[in-house]
Amino acid sequence: MSKAFIAGSGTTPFGSFPNRSGRELFAEAGLSALSDAGIDPDDIDEVFYGNFLGSLSERQGHQGPLAAEALGTTAPSRRVESACASSGLAVRDAVRAVRSGESDIVVAGGMERMSNMGTEGATDGLARAADELFEVRSGVTFPAAYALMARAYFNAFGGDRKDLAHVAVKNHDNALVNDHAHLREEIAVDDVLEAPELAAPFGLYDSCPISDGAAAVVLVSPLYAAEHGLDTGVAITGTGHGGDTMALQDRRSLAKTPATREAATEAYDDAEISPSDVAFAEVHDCFTIAEVLALEGLGLYGYGEAVGAARRGETRRDGELPINLSGGLKAKGHPVGATGAAQIAGVRTLLEGTHPRSDALGDDATVGLAHNAGGTVASATVHVLEVVT
Amino acid sequence: MSKAFIAGSGTTPFGSFPNRSGRELFAEAGLSALSDAGIDPDDIDEVFYGNFLGSLSERQGHQGPLAAEALGTTAPSRRVESACASSGLAVRDAVRAVRSGESDIVVAGGMERMSNMGTEGATDGLARAADELFEVRSGVTFPAAYALMARAYFNAFGGDRKDLAHVAVKNHDNALVNDHAHLREEIAVDDVLEAPELAAPFGLYDSCPISDGAAAVVLVSPLYAAEHGLDTGVAITGTGHGGDTMALQDRRSLAKTPATREAATEAYDDAEISPSDVAFAEVHDCFTIAEVLALEGLGLYGYGEAVGAARRGETRRDGELPINLSGGLKAKGHPVGATGAAQIAGVRTLLEGTHPRSDALGDDATVGLAHNAGGTVASATVHVLEVVT
Repeated sequence: MSKAFIAGSGTTPFGSFPNRSGRELFAEAGLSALSDAGIDPDDIDEVFYGNFLGSLSERQGHQGPLAAEALGTTAPSRRVESACASSGLAVRDAVRAVRSGESDIVVAGGMERMSNMGTEGATDGLARAADELFEVRSGVTFPAAYALMARAYFNAFGGDRKDLAHVAVKNHDNALVNDHAHLREEIAVDDVLEAPELAAPFGLYDSCPISDGAAAVVLVSPLYAAEHGLDTGVAITGTGHGGDTMALQDRRSLAKTPATREAATEAYDDAEISPSDVAFAEVHDCFTIAEVLALEGLGLYGYGEAVGAARRGETRRDGELPINLSGGLKAKGHPVGATGAAQIAGVRTLLEGTHPRSDALGDDATVGLAHNAGGTVASATVHVLEVVT
Repeated sequence: MSKAFIAGSGTTPFGSFPNRSGRELFAEAGLSALSDAGIDPDDIDEVFYGNFLGSLSERQGHQGPLAAEALGTTAPSRRVESACASSGLAVRDAVRAVRSGESDIVVAGGMERMSNMGTEGATDGLARAADELFEVRSGVTFPAAYALMARAYFNAFGGDRKDLAHVAVKNHDNALVNDHAHLREEIAVDDVLEAPELAAPFGLYDSCPISDGAAAVVLVSPLYAAEHGLDTGVAITGTGHGGDTMALQDRRSLAKTPATREAATEAYDDAEISPSDVAFAEVHDCFTIAEVLALEGLGLYGYGEAVGAARRGETRRDGELPINLSGGLKAKGHPVGATGAAQIAGVRTLLEGTHPRSDALGDDATVGLAHNAGGTVASATVHVLEVVT
């Protein structure tokens, strides 16, 4: 399919900003992306905005028009919501809009603000990404849900807590030089194993933090890119979207994530690549097991083979397939509605050589991938980004 | 542009159903639409779902996968949110998906459940469609906001409460035979004028009720329609989307709704029609003044000319331009996230001759319009539907 060129991208630092409003955060990311693109707000055709908890965290629904206003436009806007995959899906919809030629210039991004809700409030809010009737009322929180998936994985394929600990250590290590990362703290495998228990087999370091932040990308149509000299650099060449049952109880297996597989298959077909072409990826590691499930769902590893990847060093930044060079959700942070767009901004800057971890990639790294998941992967998006010369 | 064929549609009755879950309501509407279309759930490519308050009213976010499940599929799904225009926008996105050829069969719709929140809870929830920082904290509720717009309109163009009362009387009258309508109660102009004051100049009957309900349409691509004999009947031939500032204070005038004008202009261009081709319309009359503002924003009347339309009889069902034959939001009801899709389902059945008010239309009525607005028209969608033979 045709390409959606990334003309600009921007993110706020991720962290705890309880006194910054959502619109302020999105303005910072969005205006930075517009400035990067050299595009005037008046020229924006549409705004695609991802957010999950605004109605609870700042009593604000109908955030599309506010996101547009934050950018300095009253262009048509929408909020796209698919829990933690909200802005991955916002980018997907934006890609469709510019590819079809319906729009020339669009901004896609997202924002989440959770630290002002407190840990209990945020946990209660995030539970809305699971099935209220059949999971939440039975006591399933997200750490518990992913813990069930980890146990199912260990049962089906083997692996242990120590394998997962290496995922956490790797992603924390990657984040050390990323001044936009929430957690810049070096940890050792023993720190992970000895951390307070969250939900067996997880300890505290198996989980991402509760973060605030925003991210945005400016996408332009192939025609506009050609006419304005923007048709080199990094483009989104493939997009995919998958679905699954909401409740874990309805799945055939808790050790696989078919929504990721569905999204990946579509994205690879769309970009006309195969998994072996992918040089590096940002994947949805809200919990350590989630990175393992993602790598297998994406077809970057066979089922049962990814659990030891970090421990073996393969997915470390000096390995053959660096994963989550930004620090991932685990250490960079996970402001839910911003995560998908932030991953795409991260892959873009990694490919362009302007990311603090770009030096981990060789010149032959021209294809990167971003994977964003909602809930316990009841929804997933995958985007393929490529350097276009 | 190419057509998106409506293969089926369905709505629940609108009313007060505090003990029915959102997924149950959407299942009723969606399965009815699929049955109407004769399409198997396994063949659905994507689901586009509009909802505004689920996170508050039933502690359920991430509703896309649940909406898909309600239809019997795990197809990729998304929630589209733009306050009261959520499912108008869901339909727009669905139209794009089938027109671009990315999907063959999609279901678009929406649901809202509010009666379980109580009047205070619903009013508090709905306030999230306005600007929390610059409107809600100053005491602006939706009745108050639209009351400000009504007063600005009277100041700019004239008209009075009695003109608006005729809008309410007309829409209540239209709803009398609609067994899916929330309010089937004949009212007189004096009833409206003597009703308890809501926010001057509005009395109780100037406002729509707080409703629960769901609606869905099945859209198919032009190619699929041609290959499966679905390319006659009613199609969406034009779609448009507009935006405006969120807060009233930032608008040049409160007596006009430029987001509606923007959406209408795009939809007319897309369908290659002019406003004079429109035989009838379902417009967003959350308050009586909103119908007036809509008719003018849509270009069906000049600015300042629509306020007397109902009083003069022009927009009654025996008038030259019947408006809200279904009863409108005013009497059919306004389950926020379902309204846009319900309007489109209504225009479709009106055109097909299967709506209880189809007899108001002559054989030459082949073009209908649906107008859905978010908040105080900070967002708006317009769809043109036509009979295709």
